[in-house]
Amino acid sequence: MRSGRIITLLTDFGLQDGYVGMMKGAIAQINPTISIIDLTHHIPPQDIAQARFVLLSSVPYFAPGTVHVAVVDPGVGSDRRSIAIAVGESLDQPVAYLVAPDNGLVSGVLAQFPILATVELNQPHYWRTPDPSSTFHGRDIFAPVAAHLASGVPLSQLGTAIAPDSLQRLDLPPVTRTAHTLQGCIQAIDHFGNLITTIPAQSVSPGAWTVAWTEQVISAVKTYSDRPPGTPVTLIGSHGWVEIAIVNGNAQQTFKLKVGDTVEIRLPS
Amino acid sequence: MRSGRIITLLTDFGLQDGYVGMMKGAIAQINPTISIIDLTHHIPPQDIAQARFVLLSSVPYFAPGTVHVAVVDPGVGSDRRSIAIAVGESLDQPVAYLVAPDNGLVSGVLAQFPILATVELNQPHYWRTPDPSSTFHGRDIFAPVAAHLASGVPLSQLGTAIAPDSLQRLDLPPVTRTAHTLQGCIQAIDHFGNLITTIPAQSVSPGAWTVAWTEQVISAVKTYSDRPPGTPVTLIGSHGWVEIAIVNGNAQQTFKLKVGDTVEIRLPS
Amino acid sequence: MRSGRIITLLTDFGLQDGYVGMMKGAIAQINPTISIIDLTHHIPPQDIAQARFVLLSSVPYFAPGTVHVAVVDPGVGSDRRSIAIAVGESLDQPVAYLVAPDNGLVSGVLAQFPILATVELNQPHYWRTPDPSSTFHGRDIFAPVAAHLASGVPLSQLGTAIAPDSLQRLDLPPVTRTAHTLQGCIQAIDHFGNLITTIPAQSVSPGAWTVAWTEQVISAVKTYSDRPPGTPVTLIGSHGWVEIAIVNGNAQQTFKLKVGDTVEIRLPS
Repeated sequence: MRSGRIITLLTDFGLQDGYVGMMKGAIAQINPTISIIDLTHHIPPQDIAQARFVLLSSVPYFAPGTVHVAVVDPGVGSDRRSIAIAVGESLDQPVAYLVAPDNGLVSGVLAQFPILATVELNQPHYWRTPDPSSTFHGRDIFAPVAAHLASGVPLSQLGTAIAPDSLQRLDLPPVTRTAHTLQGCIQAIDHFGNLITTIPAQSVSPGAWTVAWTEQVISAVKTYSDRPPGTPVTLIGSHGWVEIAIVNGNAQQTFKLKVGDTVEIRLPS
Repeated sequence: MRSGRIITLLTDFGLQDGYVGMMKGAIAQINPTISIIDLTHHIPPQDIAQARFVLLSSVPYFAPGTVHVAVVDPGVGSDRRSIAIAVGESLDQPVAYLVAPDNGLVSGVLAQFPILATVELNQPHYWRTPDPSSTFHGRDIFAPVAAHLASGVPLSQLGTAIAPDSLQRLDLPPVTRTAHTLQGCIQAIDHFGNLITTIPAQSVSPGAWTVAWTEQVISAVKTYSDRPPGTPVTLIGSHGWVEIAIVNGNAQQTFKLKVGDTVEIRLPS
Repeated sequence: MRSGRIITLLTDFGLQDGYVGMMKGAIAQINPTISIIDLTHHIPPQDIAQARFVLLSSVPYFAPGTVHVAVVDPGVGSDRRSIAIAVGESLDQPVAYLVAPDNGLVSGVLAQFPILATVELNQPHYWRTPDPSSTFHGRDIFAPVAAHLASGVPLSQLGTAIAPDSLQRLDLPPVTRTAHTLQGCIQAIDHFGNLITTIPAQSVSPGAWTVAWTEQVISAVKTYSDRPPGTPVTLIGSHGWVEIAIVNGNAQQTFKLKVGDTVEIRLPS
């Protein structure tokens, strides 16, 4: 067993029931030396889009070889495939392994890193039981497979190779540009109520854009503390995208926007 | 110190205060190599029945020798006993150790596995302090005792042996059967709103039963995806019991049932 | 790398987003053998006073040398300093390291233990990036610095020494005493609704005081189970302060008090 290996977990299971604990038990039964880190278990039920965002935002902060298990799985028990993917530059040291249902959840990560290998999980030898629950693949398939991956079992032993272009995708509309505007959409809302758009930091000059809504023009700042509490601002957020926020307040509650809503920003002339 | 040992925690402390962190600190002070896994800390306050269910559901997914600390403890500071129990087939390798107040919380596990040994925790040498807080035995007694157990201290050193039949029990009414019905009750409700009954999977044929409420007859399915979103279904849930659910919906909110309510299922003629 | 070292995390980030997971990733990238323990991530947004209390309550339950990262940081991105502090009796084995913004959050701990050394974090070599996000120092500065501290980097390498009396403080009014009264205030409210005052256990005799509000006189007890459910009681809580509680109930909801409100207790004549 290699020690020091990390598995992260991302689900919509919440923490009220024992579901997350059972997944961790299933990992620890296989290799008790693995460290398990929770990304979040509070994805709104069945919200693949929100899970997609948290996963793509988190992967870059983990060491190469980390195994990310993501289970938001409205199709559990149907014929949707279970998959494992290695992404990065080299199979010897992938940036990350992804273990998830094939429902678009990993799309955001796949847009960031080259796909090295993709398998459909069909080797019950690496599952908790050859007769998995039809409602809880997280415990019976994904967690055990991740534990074997993190313990050194090669991806190719966990299932049959499949074509990357056969994977389900969940891609947001691309950002469009005119001479003086960029139009994207809200791709996620964090628990402070900050609105995170699809417009990347690289496409704007620091502090030099505005967002116009109704009567209000919101100006770009470099940091929250540039404005007094209660002021709407737009800035480059910690995830690397243009965000809209209210200093020490909640932009979602104020502006009543939701994921997918269009956001247009104006660039200087 | 043995490494690779696991302690699980199950409480009604929530995660807002530092209580759970203090229990983990008390464990780490004794043996920093122990891995600590949260089952849940969101048991409704004082709800021993819900804690009983989460504990019995979780124990089978952990490796032999795991120490489960469960603290839902309305009687803390009274003369209720503190206990530790080994269950399984052999004291050399118990299925699990349970460390808890003697209030019925461990009843569900005791109905599943033979009791190997039971002690009343009365050896302050293994506590955080000989003068424990009258309101927080989780930190001062249960967590330290668990850390010593996980580090190799024999159960018999932690307290005085007591008779298993003196333990408090919290047992639900047994399932009753007629020619064409099974009557049980709801033993737990998960955070998706799925209603988990006391009727075990083994007592029904897959997909071959119905639940009748008011005007509606709910038919058994093998998996959620057999029916469109919004359909009430009954199926064998991941815990191994008959459940009642709404596909991609919330059965508790729709049917307004609670733990202890009677559920009758009809078997095929 | 030294193993067995612990980092604790205390934030107002909540668990819905991936922020806490990213901080853990940033730690694991530097040293995957560090154990990470959550104190809480549910501090009300920007509530430095509540964070102050949870931190001071938790530190004593961890082993010497534990690194506590606390990030409730309304001033992130402003010119508020980032600091690391060693407290205890000896720099060879400090009681604790604190890594936090300089905004008063660590005041409670500093009132309990001598300060050994204080630095302003200004060595980007120990950060995740020399160009940290202006909104997420937890991930880019505090977590990496803590990982280096826990891995053996001396405090003095992480920044420039600063004078302890230059630190921001957030101190509550001192307890005042008359012949037969003690007047303090509520310093925290836990999730059971128990009201935790600033009056220390040592200043009263066990079970011998009352709290008088409106028409009701609340008598001191030694433990909750001394009174029937629903009874208001006052007792020495597990944190070592006079608390006001309702047996199996919620004192905050009943008495409608908040942090900072004055509480007067009457001592026996």
